[in-house]
Amino acid sequence: SKRKNPSYGKRGMTLEDDINDSNQYYLDRGIAVIHKKPTPVQIVQVDYPARSAAVIKEAYFKQASTTDYNGIYKGKYIDFEAKETKNTTSFPFNNFHLHQIEHMRNIIKQRGICFVILRFSTTDELFLLEAKELLVFWERMENGGRKSMTKDEVREKGHRIILGFQPRIDYIKILDNIYQLDSST
Amino acid sequence: SKRKNPSYGKRGMTLEDDINDSNQYYLDRGIAVIHKKPTPVQIVQVDYPARSAAVIKEAYFKQASTTDYNGIYKGKYIDFEAKETKNTTSFPFNNFHLHQIEHMRNIIKQRGICFVILRFSTTDELFLLEAKELLVFWERMENGGRKSMTKDEVREKGHRIILGFQPRIDYIKILDNIYQLDSST
Ligand SMILES: [Mg+2]
Ligand SMILES: [Mg+2]
Repeated sequence: SKRKNPSYGKRGMTLEDDINDSNQYYLDRGIAVIHKKPTPVQIVQVDYPARSAAVIKEAYFKQASTTDYNGIYKGKYIDFEAKETKNTTSFPFNNFHLHQIEHMRNIIKQRGICFVILRFSTTDELFLLEAKELLVFWERMENGGRKSMTKDEVREKGHRIILGFQPRIDYIKILDNIYQLDSST
Repeated sequence: SKRKNPSYGKRGMTLEDDINDSNQYYLDRGIAVIHKKPTPVQIVQVDYPARSAAVIKEAYFKQASTTDYNGIYKGKYIDFEAKETKNTTSFPFNNFHLHQIEHMRNIIKQRGICFVILRFSTTDELFLLEAKELLVFWERMENGGRKSMTKDEVREKGHRIILGFQPRIDYIKILDNIYQLDSST
């Protein structure tokens, strides 16, 4: 998710930037409190120079054991992951990690709101897909089926997100619709 | 929270270790899904040696903008911070950051369950103090009052946590009592 593609790169914004900006928009207006978790890093060596800040001199990226984003909206626990693909006809599972899938299963069991934001980067199309739907396709793969969801499947089971100005990615609006949260307060 | 004191050091465990172990206990048994967020790091330089993992060669610790722990328990959003002091008669505010306090305020507004786990390390006494109570003492400081909570205040407004074997720090039991969550499922 750190690679840039030409069309997105024009704006100089990544999917992650857009989500972070949207979260900031929600936070500033008291709508929701949702943050990206820091990148997990294994720190091996730290230098403590006199009179200045500690410097990490050796560290390694660790695989995340959870999804990247979580927080709260109207009393509900919110948890999601964002992924993109350059594929135009399907969304491959190879950039989902088993740990993340297991985390999603755990969140569903605890009655959290869990989903993925999927971006087809070539056409700049975004979808919100509930984790329970993603798991159906994941389990199909585990049972020997295809290692991806077709774009038609994502279209059918997911919810299209139209890029906006403010917030860029208004996934809260989609959640309001799916879970009727807008009328609950 | 990374320093060790003699009594705790005997077991070789820190407050953070104990909380992480307790979270793992909850996770393994399907009780709750609560994780520590990774330490926020500003990465400046990364080397990509051929045929081996990327090495972070220069990075700096960043101040956290939220609390360290969050997750979900029985559909409820859970959010907390853990702090310790060597003081024996009061808990000073100097290791709370304004960002964390503001985050707690935001979580309360969204109807999340938010608290701190406080440890008096000299006597190895632990308390769970709800964020709404912490904020009263914090605001007293902002209005010119003392820069700490007395231990008596923590005792009165907080909930004592007795260290256990498994889980070591059973804060979920305290939450069950405060919020009557044990009967809700
Ligand atoms: Mg990710
Ligand atoms: Mg901390």
